[in-house]
Amino acid sequence: MASLSNNEIKRIKALQQKKFRDETGLFIVEGEKMVEEALHSRFEVQSVYRKDEIGEEAMRRISSLSSPSPAFAVVRKPSDTYVGDVSDIASTFASGGLYIALDTIRDPGNLGTILRIADWFGVDAVFATPDTVDVFNPKVVQATMGAVFRVRMHYTDLPSLASTLIESGGKVYGTFLDGENIYSRHLDDGSESPVMIVIGNESEGISKEMSALVSDRLYIPPYPADQPGSESLNAAVATALAVAEFRRRTY
Amino acid sequence: MASLSNNEIKRIKALQQKKFRDETGLFIVEGEKMVEEALHSRFEVQSVYRKDEIGEEAMRRISSLSSPSPAFAVVRKPSDTYVGDVSDIASTFASGGLYIALDTIRDPGNLGTILRIADWFGVDAVFATPDTVDVFNPKVVQATMGAVFRVRMHYTDLPSLASTLIESGGKVYGTFLDGENIYSRHLDDGSESPVMIVIGNESEGISKEMSALVSDRLYIPPYPADQPGSESLNAAVATALAVAEFRRRTY
Repeated sequence: MASLSNNEIKRIKALQQKKFRDETGLFIVEGEKMVEEALHSRFEVQSVYRKDEIGEEAMRRISSLSSPSPAFAVVRKPSDTYVGDVSDIASTFASGGLYIALDTIRDPGNLGTILRIADWFGVDAVFATPDTVDVFNPKVVQATMGAVFRVRMHYTDLPSLASTLIESGGKVYGTFLDGENIYSRHLDDGSESPVMIVIGNESEGISKEMSALVSDRLYIPPYPADQPGSESLNAAVATALAVAEFRRRTY
Repeated sequence: MASLSNNEIKRIKALQQKKFRDETGLFIVEGEKMVEEALHSRFEVQSVYRKDEIGEEAMRRISSLSSPSPAFAVVRKPSDTYVGDVSDIASTFASGGLYIALDTIRDPGNLGTILRIADWFGVDAVFATPDTVDVFNPKVVQATMGAVFRVRMHYTDLPSLASTLIESGGKVYGTFLDGENIYSRHLDDGSESPVMIVIGNESEGISKEMSALVSDRLYIPPYPADQPGSESLNAAVATALAVAEFRRRTY
């Protein structure tokens, strides 16, 4: 059985922290299916560790999970995406597209689920404020169920990107408690001009600066429409309902 | 400053485990807003602990969170719900209703989010297999954002309940990869006869036994419709999309 040195284990474990992921350009992927997806993606897989090769104890030590899975990989972050420079994306605004803009999503599970939604509904890219949780955080990667390898995502200055989109003739949508019923109003479908859906922070909602750039305020009505139970929907659920409604009309 | 004895702390901490919640009939609620909601609900609040009364160290010891919040409560589980006996609910099937049936949901975050969705969309009750995660698990309670105090939920034998619903003239819907497009087919709205939407386990989907009872197989189409990216949607997201579509048509 191959063995991992303490130093190697330490180096791998460090990738659970953003600081070391940024320094090395690497991140970790766990689970048989996720490792398979990584190997078949455009991402470069640096190394794969399997329980039957390195042993259960080493697996337990490198894992970020409470019950380590039989497969684990160290993967390189792609260099052409996930960075601040979105000039090439902005240039595609001319041909339309449906985009999600995350205005400070903090919860790893929410970000992972949102990437999975973006993947399912063919969203052209996901943008996020720099203080949104890191997409290469192990909890986010796991929650994406592989969508992390397919969805284009950029951390960038959202207000400036939204302004660029508006200049390209696009529309910026956002959900607000005082918005218009999403099910009964016109929605651009992104086929001719770009469409951005802004998703607000879990407790604070959409920031003041981004709110000012939202041209169309939407509302997902509760049932019965005049009797909301919860005060709000979870951020990932709101994303799913909004994106699904934009897509539903084009099927 | 009032102080908590080691025994009291131990007794409260034990409520993080299902065994002790079942024994005592108590569960814990954390956070200023959640404690407020508990106090204004029909649930009986046994005791409230505040950081400025018992001190930060005691708060840290009783908390189930990594950063303890300023308020904490021990609450009594209601006796009229959350139990196996659903005979009174079954008797209401005659007047219709929209119900969610959880076929072994394991993830606490998913269950919490599903209760929040049920609350938002006015679902009449949530039923779950006995091996679904406990709704009084602290992680579930937190994820409900208060919906746990408003949504009626029962752990029960799902196949038998589904059979009762069918005998009352109701329909059992479920989402499957080979189902019919939910956006383009007829859906009963639950106003005349009862409607049950079955949500499958995170990795296994709907069990064989429940599948056999589903009369209408639905599918939430990806975009583009012939090119699914992800293999599936998260269980809570699928719940939201299905329930929203049943409700959207009645607004």
